[in-house]
Amino acid sequence: MSSKGSVVLAYSGGLDTSCILVWLKEQGYDVIAYLANTGQKEDFQEPGAKNVFIEDVSREFVEEFIWPAIRSSTLYEDRYLLGTSLARPCIACKQVEVAQREGAKYVYHGTMGKGNDQVRFELTCYSLFKGHNDLMEYSKQRGIPIPATPKNPWNMDENLMHISYEAGILENPKNQAPPGLYTKTQDQAKAPNIPDILEIEFRKGVSMKVTNIKDSATLQTALELFMYLNKVAGKHGVGTVIVENRFIGMKSRGIHGAPAGTILYHAHLDTKAFTVDREVHKIKQSLGLKFTELVYTGFCPECEFVRHCITKSQERVEGKVQVSVLKGQVYIPGRESPLSLYNEELVSMNVQGDYEPIDATGFININSLNKVTTK
Amino acid sequence: MSSKGSVVLAYSGGLDTSCILVWLKEQGYDVIAYLANTGQKEDFQEPGAKNVFIEDVSREFVEEFIWPAIRSSTLYEDRYLLGTSLARPCIACKQVEVAQREGAKYVYHGTMGKGNDQVRFELTCYSLFKGHNDLMEYSKQRGIPIPATPKNPWNMDENLMHISYEAGILENPKNQAPPGLYTKTQDQAKAPNIPDILEIEFRKGVSMKVTNIKDSATLQTALELFMYLNKVAGKHGVGTVIVENRFIGMKSRGIHGAPAGTILYHAHLDTKAFTVDREVHKIKQSLGLKFTELVYTGFCPECEFVRHCITKSQERVEGKVQVSVLKGQVYIPGRESPLSLYNEELVSMNVQGDYEPIDATGFININSLNKVTTK
Amino acid sequence: MSSKGSVVLAYSGGLDTSCILVWLKEQGYDVIAYLANTGQKEDFQEPGAKNVFIEDVSREFVEEFIWPAIRSSTLYEDRYLLGTSLARPCIACKQVEVAQREGAKYVYHGTMGKGNDQVRFELTCYSLFKGHNDLMEYSKQRGIPIPATPKNPWNMDENLMHISYEAGILENPKNQAPPGLYTKTQDQAKAPNIPDILEIEFRKGVSMKVTNIKDSATLQTALELFMYLNKVAGKHGVGTVIVENRFIGMKSRGIHGAPAGTILYHAHLDTKAFTVDREVHKIKQSLGLKFTELVYTGFCPECEFVRHCITKSQERVEGKVQVSVLKGQVYIPGRESPLSLYNEELVSMNVQGDYEPIDATGFININSLNKVTTK
Amino acid sequence: MSSKGSVVLAYSGGLDTSCILVWLKEQGYDVIAYLANTGQKEDFQEPGAKNVFIEDVSREFVEEFIWPAIRSSTLYEDRYLLGTSLARPCIACKQVEVAQREGAKYVYHGTMGKGNDQVRFELTCYSLFKGHNDLMEYSKQRGIPIPATPKNPWNMDENLMHISYEAGILENPKNQAPPGLYTKTQDQAKAPNIPDILEIEFRKGVSMKVTNIKDSATLQTALELFMYLNKVAGKHGVGTVIVENRFIGMKSRGIHGAPAGTILYHAHLDTKAFTVDREVHKIKQSLGLKFTELVYTGFCPECEFVRHCITKSQERVEGKVQVSVLKGQVYIPGRESPLSLYNEELVSMNVQGDYEPIDATGFININSLNKVTTK
Repeated sequence: MSSKGSVVLAYSGGLDTSCILVWLKEQGYDVIAYLANTGQKEDFQEPGAKNVFIEDVSREFVEEFIWPAIRSSTLYEDRYLLGTSLARPCIACKQVEVAQREGAKYVYHGTMGKGNDQVRFELTCYSLFKGHNDLMEYSKQRGIPIPATPKNPWNMDENLMHISYEAGILENPKNQAPPGLYTKTQDQAKAPNIPDILEIEFRKGVSMKVTNIKDSATLQTALELFMYLNKVAGKHGVGTVIVENRFIGMKSRGIHGAPAGTILYHAHLDTKAFTVDREVHKIKQSLGLKFTELVYTGFCPECEFVRHCITKSQERVEGKVQVSVLKGQVYIPGRESPLSLYNEELVSMNVQGDYEPIDATGFININSLNKVTTK
Repeated sequence: MSSKGSVVLAYSGGLDTSCILVWLKEQGYDVIAYLANTGQKEDFQEPGAKNVFIEDVSREFVEEFIWPAIRSSTLYEDRYLLGTSLARPCIACKQVEVAQREGAKYVYHGTMGKGNDQVRFELTCYSLFKGHNDLMEYSKQRGIPIPATPKNPWNMDENLMHISYEAGILENPKNQAPPGLYTKTQDQAKAPNIPDILEIEFRKGVSMKVTNIKDSATLQTALELFMYLNKVAGKHGVGTVIVENRFIGMKSRGIHGAPAGTILYHAHLDTKAFTVDREVHKIKQSLGLKFTELVYTGFCPECEFVRHCITKSQERVEGKVQVSVLKGQVYIPGRESPLSLYNEELVSMNVQGDYEPIDATGFININSLNKVTTK
Repeated sequence: MSSKGSVVLAYSGGLDTSCILVWLKEQGYDVIAYLANTGQKEDFQEPGAKNVFIEDVSREFVEEFIWPAIRSSTLYEDRYLLGTSLARPCIACKQVEVAQREGAKYVYHGTMGKGNDQVRFELTCYSLFKGHNDLMEYSKQRGIPIPATPKNPWNMDENLMHISYEAGILENPKNQAPPGLYTKTQDQAKAPNIPDILEIEFRKGVSMKVTNIKDSATLQTALELFMYLNKVAGKHGVGTVIVENRFIGMKSRGIHGAPAGTILYHAHLDTKAFTVDREVHKIKQSLGLKFTELVYTGFCPECEFVRHCITKSQERVEGKVQVSVLKGQVYIPGRESPLSLYNEELVSMNVQGDYEPIDATGFININSLNKVTTK
Repeated sequence: MSSKGSVVLAYSGGLDTSCILVWLKEQGYDVIAYLANTGQKEDFQEPGAKNVFIEDVSREFVEEFIWPAIRSSTLYEDRYLLGTSLARPCIACKQVEVAQREGAKYVYHGTMGKGNDQVRFELTCYSLFKGHNDLMEYSKQRGIPIPATPKNPWNMDENLMHISYEAGILENPKNQAPPGLYTKTQDQAKAPNIPDILEIEFRKGVSMKVTNIKDSATLQTALELFMYLNKVAGKHGVGTVIVENRFIGMKSRGIHGAPAGTILYHAHLDTKAFTVDREVHKIKQSLGLKFTELVYTGFCPECEFVRHCITKSQERVEGKVQVSVLKGQVYIPGRESPLSLYNEELVSMNVQGDYEPIDATGFININSLNKVTTK
C-alpha cells in the first residue's frame, strides 16, 4: 500500500501515543516519532516508527516557557503552577521544526489554538478510541505495552517543572493518595528538620543565580539552577498540591508536584512586592490572571501580547532574596535590592519631607468626598 | 476649664492611643475610651479615661468581616490575608454606636474612607507627634507606660484573625525573626509529625461546621469553629508569612500569622474550584483582587458593591472538604459536594452523550480561526 | 413513513429556516414552526408546517433583554448595541416553552451555550448546506420562495431594538450602502432641522417614562416608550452604524440601526454619571465589558452572574434627563436627580466644610509617594 | 526685600494664574511666567513677570499626548475625550525644562502625581483663595484684569484637542448652553447638507495621512492633519458633548468640544476592529479603561506601563478608512487594510477549509459543558 505521506507524531511513550502510532501505520502513514525530552524520567521503548527523533529541549523549556510563567506568578485557580500546560507548546514548536526539516505532511501534537489541519487530524485519531477502556482493548489486541501497570494504577505526567498523577484509583476525589506515590518530593513528615537556606538573585524578574548558604553551592545557568532547586525542594517536600482539573480531556483529579517552581514562585513574589510600584503591581495582577488562563487553554495572539506586557512590568524586579526551605514550606526571612521601594518609604515615615501626617488628612478627605454607600 | 465636649477614643492599649488619650484630656476633652476586643490577648491598664467601654466584638468580627474575606479569597499582593485591615472597620462601626449612645461630639478611630470630621480630628492628633521617637519622648514626660518593652523590641498587632510583629529590630528586612517571636503558631520543626485531619463544611461559601476526624470534636458556630481552627493550625505551625508592608503609616516589614484564616483560605478555595463554573470563577477572581485592594485601603461604596457581587458568586460553594494539617502545611486530600461540577464532567469524559471527542475539533478550529500573532 | 418525532423550529421566514423546514419534513419529522415576533415587520408566508405558532414577545424582549443591556451600557467593540444577539435568547426561551407544552422531541434554534442535543441537531442541518449559493440551489429545486429578492441584494435582520443589513453587495467593505437602504431611520441630510426634546425618567437604571416637551406626549410602559423612541429617533436619523462583524457564521459586514437603543444608551449614561459613585462606576465598566462579550457569544452562568452584579450597581441610577434629538445626534442639555452626587460636590467646592484646598496637598503627596517611573 | 528665589509659573492668562502671579510677587518671589501654547486662541496680556516665556508646544502635544489617547480609545466615563487632562502633563514637562534651564527654585503647575514640593506650594497658593468669588475680590483690589467678562459669563479651557466651557451660568445642570457659545464647532442645524469625505491612513494605531476625497487636499504631518481635521469637523458640527465633571477642583459641569479628536476616535476604532485579534482587543479594552482613569487623575508609573502595553497592542492597526463627516456625525462607509483579519474570515465562511459548520457543534458543546446557571 502506498504511503499517505509522513506524519511527525509527538510520541510520549504513554498509552495514547503508543496506540495512535500503531493506528497511524495501519492507516498507511509513514510515522516519524518525535520525542521531546522536557525532563521526564522515562526509559523509552522503541516505538517502531520509521524514524525516531529524541531531543532534549530542557533548556528551552526553562528559559522560554517556565521563566515567563514565574514572572507572571501564574497560579491557575490560585493553586496550580501549570507545569503540564507549559510543556505542551514547547514540544509543539520543536516538533514543527522537525516536520519542516523532514518535509512531513502532517504533525500530530497535543497543543491547542494552533493551525487547523494537524489538530483536526489529531482529534480524528482520538475519536477512534472512546475513553480509557477502549484504548486498553486496542493495545491488548495489537500487543502494545501498557505503561500504567497494575502496580501503578494511575497515569503520570512528568517534566522539569512538574509531575502529576491522575486517573485510576485517584479519580474518586474522596480517595487519598497512596503512600509512595511521590517520586519527586519527600514526605514532609520524613523531611529533614534543618532547613536549607538559599540565596536567589533576580534581574528583570528572572532568577540569575542560586547560592546555598550552607555549602556555598552556586548555580548560574537557568537549567542548572532550576534542576538544583528541584533537588533541594524535593528533599524538603516542597510543592505538592492536590487539585481538581476541570478541563476537557484532562483527568478529573490530579496530584501535582512542582518543587523548583514553588520556590521560585515565592522568591519572585517577594522581590516583586519589594521593587514594583503598588499600582503597577495591581494592573500586572490582572494581566497575570489572563496569562494564566491563556497558558491553561493554549498559546495564541493575546497570550503573546499579555506575555509582552508582563515582561515590561518586570523591569525593576531585581534583588537577592534569602529563602528558607523546611518541611514543605518556603520562607523568605530576608531580602535586599538596589531598586527597593522600601528604603525610600522607610525614610518617608521617619524624617519630615516626602510625607507629613497632615497629608493623610487630605488623602482621606478627598477619598471620602461624595462617598455614598450603595447598600 | 470647661470641656470642649466628649470624644469616643478607640483605645488599643498601645503607645499611640495611650499618648493621644492623655493629649486629648490636656486639650480639655472628656475622653470615653472604647476598647473593642477582637480577640487580642492583652491585660489592659486602666486608661484613666472618664468612661471605659470594653466590648467583645469577636463574633461580629468573624461573621461580618472575616467571612467576606474568606469568600473572596483576599490575599493582598498574593500573600497577606489582611488580618489587621479587617479589624479596623469592625471596631469603627461599634465605636460609632457608642458615640451615638453617649452623645459624643467626636469619634477617634483608625479607619479610612468614612466621614470627614472625625478623621481630620484624628489626624490632627497624629500630626502632633512626628514619628515613633517623638511619641516615646511625650510618653516619658507624662509617665505613660510603654507597651513595647526592651525585651520585646517590636510592636504587635493581634486579633482573632491575625497576629503581626513589626518595627524595632524587624525593621531591617535583612534581619530574621528572633526565636520565640511567635506566640500563636508553633515552629514547624517542633510541630507534631502526625497530622490533624479536619472535615470542614461550607454552605454559600461560608464554613458552617468543623469536625476533627481523630476525636470527633465538632464545632458549629462561626466563632467557636474559628477559634478551634486557630488552635489546631497554631499547633501545626500553619499560617506564618513574612511580608513587606508598603502602605502609609504602617511599619515597613511585618511578620504575619493567620492560622485559622490560612486553613479556611485553602478549604474554601478547594470547595469553590469544585462547585463554581470556571467562567464565573474567573470574573470573581478579578472582583476578589478589587475587594482585597479595597479592604486594604478602607471600606467605601465600591467595597459594598464588590462584596455584594462576591457573595452572589458563592451561592453554589457548598460541600465537605477533608483538610490535613501538618508541619505548617494544609492539604486537601479529599472533598465531596452535592453541587459538584466534577461528577458531571467525569461522566462526560467516559460515556458518550454530553461530550464527544470530535467536539474538541470544532472547539479548537473555531478558537484558532483568524489567530494572528502580534509578535 | 412513520414520524421521527416532532421538532419545534424557530421559523424566521428567512431563506435558511425555510429550507431547513422543508428538509426536516423530508427527513420525516413533524415540524412545529414557531415564529416569535420581536418587532420585525414582515408578512410571513404560510410555512407549510404541521402547526404554526406565531407569538408576540415584544414586551418580554424589551423588559427582560433590552433593559439589562441598556443598564450595562453594552457596546460591542465600542460601537454595536447587540440588537441581534439580544433577541436570540429571548426567542429560544419562548420556544422551549412551546416544545414542553407540545411534547416536542427536538428544538431547533439559533442560540448558543445552551444544552447540547438541540444545538448539535441544528448544526447537523446547517452542515448540509455549504454556504449561501448551496441554499439558493436547494430552495430553487424545492420551490421555496427566496426573501432576498434581486431588488434587495442583501439580508436583513430586524427586531424592536435593531435592524441590520448584511451580505450581498454589502459584503465588500469598500462598497457603500445604497440609497434607500434604511427603512427605520431617516437620512440625516433629510431629517428635520428642529430637534425633538424628550424628557426621560430613570429608576434603578431603567427608563420608566418618556415625555415629549413639544406636544406633551407621555409614555409609561416599557414597550410603548421604546416604540415611541424608535419613531422619534428614526425621524431624526439616529442610531445607524456600520461595523465589521467578526463572529462565526455571521456575515462579514453589517449596517446596524438601533434608534431607540441609541437614545436610551446616552440618556442612561448621563443619569449614571450623575448618580453613581465614580469608583463603583469603574468596576461596573469592567463588568459591562464582560457582559457585552457574553451577550455577544451567548447567555450562560457567568452572564447571569454579571447581569446580577450590574443590576446591583444601578440602584442609585434615578433621575430625569432632557434629551435633544437632531440630525442623527443625541444631546443631553440638562438633567436632575434626587440622588445626584453633583449638588453635594458643587457645595463642597464653594463653601468650606467637606473639602478644603489644603486637602488636595495630602492627596497628591500620598498618591505620589514612592512613585518610580517604569520607563 | 530680598528675593525668596525664583519660581516658574505656568501662566494661563486666566484669572487663577493672574492672581497667583501677583500674590507670588507680593510674597517676594521672582516670577518667571511660562506660557505653553497648546493651540489655545488667546491674546495674552503682559503678565508683568520678571521673564516671560511663550512657547508653542503644539507638535509635542499632538504626537506625545494626543496620539497615545487615540490609540487607547480614551473616553472618560464613556463620553469625554480628556482634552484638558492631556494638556496638563505636556505643559508640566516643558515647564520643568524651563525651570532647570533658569535654575528656578520652584515650579508652579497644575498636574498631579508629580513631585511633592511644587505641588504643595501650588496648593498653598490656592488655599489663600476660597472659591471663585474670593478670587474676583482679590483681583479687583489688585487691578488684575478678569478674562471672564460679563458678556462671557463662564470659563473657557482651550487647546488643540479640546475646548470646554464651564462655570458661570453653566453651573446649573438644568441650564442649556446659550446660543453662540461654540466658537470651534458649527451648530448642526446650520452645518452643510453635503458631507466631507476623508480618507485617513493609520500605521501602528497612529494616523499618518489625511486626504479629502473632494478636493484631494492631503496632509501628512501629525500637527497639520490634526489641525485640518479640527477645521473639517468644526464646519460640520462634530464633537460637542455636555458632561458632568466630578473631579476635585474642576467645575461641576462642562460643555466639551473635541472636533478632530472625535473623528480620529471613530476612524481608529474602525481600523482596530478590522485588524486586531478579538481577544487582544478585549484585553486592550480593559487596559484602555485603566489608561483613561490614569490620564484623568495624572501621569504616574502605572500610566507609563499601561501606555506601553497599549502601544504594543497597536502594532497591527494599519489601514485606510473612509470617513464621512456630516451634521455632527462621523460615518465609516468603507475601509481597507493589508493586515485585515476580515478577508481571511470572508474566505473561511464560503469555501471549505479553515472552517466547517460541523466545527461549531463542538465549539458549542464544549462551551456548554457543565454550565450550571447561578440563577
